[in-house]
Amino acid sequence: MKLGLIGAGRIGKLHAELLTYHIPEAEIKTIAEIYLDNIKGWANQLGISNLTADYSDILNDDDIEAILISSSTDTHARLIIEAAEAGKHIFCEKPIDLDVEKIRQALNSVNAAGVKLQVGFNRRFDPNFKKVREVVEAGKIGDVHLVKITSRDPAPPPIEYLKVSGGIFLDMAIHDFDMARYLSISDVEEVYAQGAVLIDPAIGDIGDVDTAVITLRFKNGALGVIDNSRQAAYGYDQRAEVFGSKGCVDVKNELPNSATVSTAEGVMGEKPHYFFLERYQMSYIEELKAFTEAVKKDEEPPVTGNDGLQPVLIGLAALKSLSEKKPIKIKEIA
Amino acid sequence: MKLGLIGAGRIGKLHAELLTYHIPEAEIKTIAEIYLDNIKGWANQLGISNLTADYSDILNDDDIEAILISSSTDTHARLIIEAAEAGKHIFCEKPIDLDVEKIRQALNSVNAAGVKLQVGFNRRFDPNFKKVREVVEAGKIGDVHLVKITSRDPAPPPIEYLKVSGGIFLDMAIHDFDMARYLSISDVEEVYAQGAVLIDPAIGDIGDVDTAVITLRFKNGALGVIDNSRQAAYGYDQRAEVFGSKGCVDVKNELPNSATVSTAEGVMGEKPHYFFLERYQMSYIEELKAFTEAVKKDEEPPVTGNDGLQPVLIGLAALKSLSEKKPIKIKEIA
Amino acid sequence: MKLGLIGAGRIGKLHAELLTYHIPEAEIKTIAEIYLDNIKGWANQLGISNLTADYSDILNDDDIEAILISSSTDTHARLIIEAAEAGKHIFCEKPIDLDVEKIRQALNSVNAAGVKLQVGFNRRFDPNFKKVREVVEAGKIGDVHLVKITSRDPAPPPIEYLKVSGGIFLDMAIHDFDMARYLSISDVEEVYAQGAVLIDPAIGDIGDVDTAVITLRFKNGALGVIDNSRQAAYGYDQRAEVFGSKGCVDVKNELPNSATVSTAEGVMGEKPHYFFLERYQMSYIEELKAFTEAVKKDEEPPVTGNDGLQPVLIGLAALKSLSEKKPIKIKEIA
Amino acid sequence: MKLGLIGAGRIGKLHAELLTYHIPEAEIKTIAEIYLDNIKGWANQLGISNLTADYSDILNDDDIEAILISSSTDTHARLIIEAAEAGKHIFCEKPIDLDVEKIRQALNSVNAAGVKLQVGFNRRFDPNFKKVREVVEAGKIGDVHLVKITSRDPAPPPIEYLKVSGGIFLDMAIHDFDMARYLSISDVEEVYAQGAVLIDPAIGDIGDVDTAVITLRFKNGALGVIDNSRQAAYGYDQRAEVFGSKGCVDVKNELPNSATVSTAEGVMGEKPHYFFLERYQMSYIEELKAFTEAVKKDEEPPVTGNDGLQPVLIGLAALKSLSEKKPIKIKEIA
Repeated sequence: MKLGLIGAGRIGKLHAELLTYHIPEAEIKTIAEIYLDNIKGWANQLGISNLTADYSDILNDDDIEAILISSSTDTHARLIIEAAEAGKHIFCEKPIDLDVEKIRQALNSVNAAGVKLQVGFNRRFDPNFKKVREVVEAGKIGDVHLVKITSRDPAPPPIEYLKVSGGIFLDMAIHDFDMARYLSISDVEEVYAQGAVLIDPAIGDIGDVDTAVITLRFKNGALGVIDNSRQAAYGYDQRAEVFGSKGCVDVKNELPNSATVSTAEGVMGEKPHYFFLERYQMSYIEELKAFTEAVKKDEEPPVTGNDGLQPVLIGLAALKSLSEKKPIKIKEIA
Repeated sequence: MKLGLIGAGRIGKLHAELLTYHIPEAEIKTIAEIYLDNIKGWANQLGISNLTADYSDILNDDDIEAILISSSTDTHARLIIEAAEAGKHIFCEKPIDLDVEKIRQALNSVNAAGVKLQVGFNRRFDPNFKKVREVVEAGKIGDVHLVKITSRDPAPPPIEYLKVSGGIFLDMAIHDFDMARYLSISDVEEVYAQGAVLIDPAIGDIGDVDTAVITLRFKNGALGVIDNSRQAAYGYDQRAEVFGSKGCVDVKNELPNSATVSTAEGVMGEKPHYFFLERYQMSYIEELKAFTEAVKKDEEPPVTGNDGLQPVLIGLAALKSLSEKKPIKIKEIA
Repeated sequence: MKLGLIGAGRIGKLHAELLTYHIPEAEIKTIAEIYLDNIKGWANQLGISNLTADYSDILNDDDIEAILISSSTDTHARLIIEAAEAGKHIFCEKPIDLDVEKIRQALNSVNAAGVKLQVGFNRRFDPNFKKVREVVEAGKIGDVHLVKITSRDPAPPPIEYLKVSGGIFLDMAIHDFDMARYLSISDVEEVYAQGAVLIDPAIGDIGDVDTAVITLRFKNGALGVIDNSRQAAYGYDQRAEVFGSKGCVDVKNELPNSATVSTAEGVMGEKPHYFFLERYQMSYIEELKAFTEAVKKDEEPPVTGNDGLQPVLIGLAALKSLSEKKPIKIKEIA
Repeated sequence: MKLGLIGAGRIGKLHAELLTYHIPEAEIKTIAEIYLDNIKGWANQLGISNLTADYSDILNDDDIEAILISSSTDTHARLIIEAAEAGKHIFCEKPIDLDVEKIRQALNSVNAAGVKLQVGFNRRFDPNFKKVREVVEAGKIGDVHLVKITSRDPAPPPIEYLKVSGGIFLDMAIHDFDMARYLSISDVEEVYAQGAVLIDPAIGDIGDVDTAVITLRFKNGALGVIDNSRQAAYGYDQRAEVFGSKGCVDVKNELPNSATVSTAEGVMGEKPHYFFLERYQMSYIEELKAFTEAVKKDEEPPVTGNDGLQPVLIGLAALKSLSEKKPIKIKEIA
């Protein structure tokens, strides 16, 4: 299967490398990137020689079956529409867009064209979270009563990035909103968000928060709670727990190794992985495998267009809740 | 030191036994209990022969320095007032009362009489939670950003009990509200409570909930979240975590032993303790030791009258938040 | 039940306190101790007023049903014989003696007199090791293939003590030899001991070792291995594992609390208990309870005279193995 | 860098795949395999078209800089000699041979030719064991007193394989002998091996054992103990611990995920990986990376010829110890 990659920034490069080295049955034929000079050496090493500044070279290439969109968020919706019209299957980085209307238009194009769309919620493919979902799905913990997610970054991104990111809910917690739906196997009905600026006042100055507790009410009646911090001194912290009528399943934060050193000073374990690239590497491979397989087998991808829409709705509800200091129903947003 | 015990129900008996067996320097001279016949055999075994149906026998006994109040909640405030007026030091089970005005009157009497009052928030004396507090107090995790408490019972009490208990917030979560203050070293400013009836519809029928997520905003700016369930299939679940600017401290649920059995079927660990009597036994001893020592050394007890008042305020705010579906400030209650 | 205590050194005092405070149905009537002045204040606080320098006052007292022997090891065998002849039930600290013949004579007296004898292998009453035994006994791990025991002290005792202690095998590892029999539910057939002087050359100077690895072959065909160190920098280390045809059961070292502190420096857990008094307190209570109950119900105590003999045989075999640098069969000793 | 692969059985195929997909700067140009038909489809998928039944095609190809030897053990020594004479760098699967003299001849050829030789002790590249070594090397646990290794397979190989494998010590424990040297940073001086046939009598019939405890005395004075089983019902079990004058470092068995399911039945964790291919995948990649880098940078490979020799000596000493029922010094073998 031949693919085109649009946007070769950090995450685009990651996709290209993982696909090249780990998914033998797929191949990136062409890369479209505005800053072509930045990627020539890298692409050469990967053995990819078709480089273009014009992504329509990819859309017009009949040889290319599917595209990976990893350009900036504001281009996603438009590229999805154009790719769908060109009959390409689409893997798109999250979020599809921060505007609900634009997302809907993109999804409509996908439906109309009958192409496949997978959104890049890679954490669903992490062995830990996947196992939690399997346990819930198998009914081992009974009806879901409570979903708890902890998600903390090692350090905030630059303020310039934060300004255009959509804020902590749409940039960072959006992964957790997807995880909440994935683990509860339910949509979210209502959101209440609390936030605080405890790490860097500059984050407050741009109207954002750096610490948040978001509570959810799911359609299936369960409750949920997500806690976020932009800065965990000890490293990346990613945990989840689902509690139900018959029991509970939880996953711990992942560590690079299990070594424990006991001395007179204390008992010291390894620090967690630094950040998402180290922590979630396998999941990035698995999501691409799942996408190429869905295309090959003509099946629905495991993360659908609606899975791309819902977390944005939850994020917008959280934003509104924070500003209005009251719980917000998803239908008020949608 | 000689003490009198007022109320010898389940928790009163526990206090009497622990004091008799584990605190050699203190002695229960007299027990006042309405249902005297129920306790005669038990008291005899303990070697306590002064039994009375009239608690004023205790208050009028100059030989008795301090009293333990473990009668029903609605009698606490009045007994505190009378005991204070009689010049006795007081250990009172939580809550002091469910009515803020009555609590204030009781505390005023205590202050006026200059006697000592300790409220029975025993979990502060658990080695796990005590260690978390020490770590926070020592500044090892920096400024507090987030407090997380998980508190789940193994099974709901009878509906008849629940009807008069004050509901999940004042009966069960009140311990967690105290823990939130203890671990954050801060008072609570605002409460938002979410609840659901997921375990037993009969609990809903009496206007209560059996599953709750309560978010807190502390005066020091930190956020907090407590999750409660009346029924954890696997047993009693008591955990806490405090996250701050320099790191995080957490304690796991306590298990009766650390045995792990690995077979072809899986890797099986021990289930948690069944309930609070098994889980918190040591803490009940430690709180009584702390009380008798505070009296002996003429020091302030480690759980004060205000520590008895604040969790009731938080509980009442949670109740109001649940019914009004919005966050409630503590000062709206107080 | 009234008991007499012979020998009120560290462990004798511990027994007296635990029995007084935790076993209401038993009472120490008289204490015999050579250095009477040393214990008067302490005994007074405990409420024990019958003190004597002559243990025969205890043996001649018809009111006393059972005795606790916690005098020095070289007196155990003789005291057992005299107590048996006096018709007293006997709880004796380990080891009964370091001489096999003397042990046999003591056991013969016990049998002849028909009194009960329990030997103080307290670790059998620890919740962790007890659970391992239960799992093995229930057949959950199938036939036993391998028993592994780790036992490390925080610091070596004074050289003067070590000189008369019988050495690392008879003083320290003797508990592990008992544990090996307890967990494997089998006797030991052959021993191979390796030792080294790695902590303190003075220990080597008196012909002892401070670090040891002892391998065992059990009568049921299983293998065993014990590792000992006189000095673990991080504190007392007590673990065990039994591996069998259907699986494995292990217990971790016990910690005072489960707090974990994660910071930029690392992830730090609590250090283990300092030593056996902190670690095994509950087991000392439980062994006394078991003894008084065995006497009361006229049942065989859970640690018999033969259970006292076997670990001494294993220890002597280990000593011989170390000196002859080859495996030694227990029957060569017995 | 171009390499040739000699022997494309299970482990040879693994090397070819890992090198192709994970080490972009190296490439397998030619594969030599006696059963050519078995590998054609597989090699084609990998994009390797040069296949030959005659390994001298590889040795005579000036374009090929290094070879990977993964043919049967009895061919290793001869192939090393021929490859060295052909001036190729060599990566050879363990063991080099089961005959000490043949190993010495192979190593002499390597030295004479000045080529690089790395032996396939992949576990040194596992993140867990690597971390233990780093901790020991950094002096964090002080002088090494004790090394403990647990190594249990999920199921014994077929009897036909066991017959030619060299037995449990040379086939299975050889990895642990290497690990003992790697973690202690010392050579082994003396070995005492205990074995039992507890899993399958057929293993005993061919003169082998299926359960073993091997104790070691290291040149640096430390003691060591390895326990092996051919059949752990719960899966592959790979742990290590090093105890020293300043503390202890240990690594737990690795699990596919950290999910814990708590229900009324108990608290259930994930079973370990099934076997070495799942467990050690990353280490196989890392050892090949280390080899290609050593060749590229003209440095000594991290697992040398002597590292290939020593574990064979320990294994032969263990065999002799088992048969003679006494400890054996390595110099008696060498």
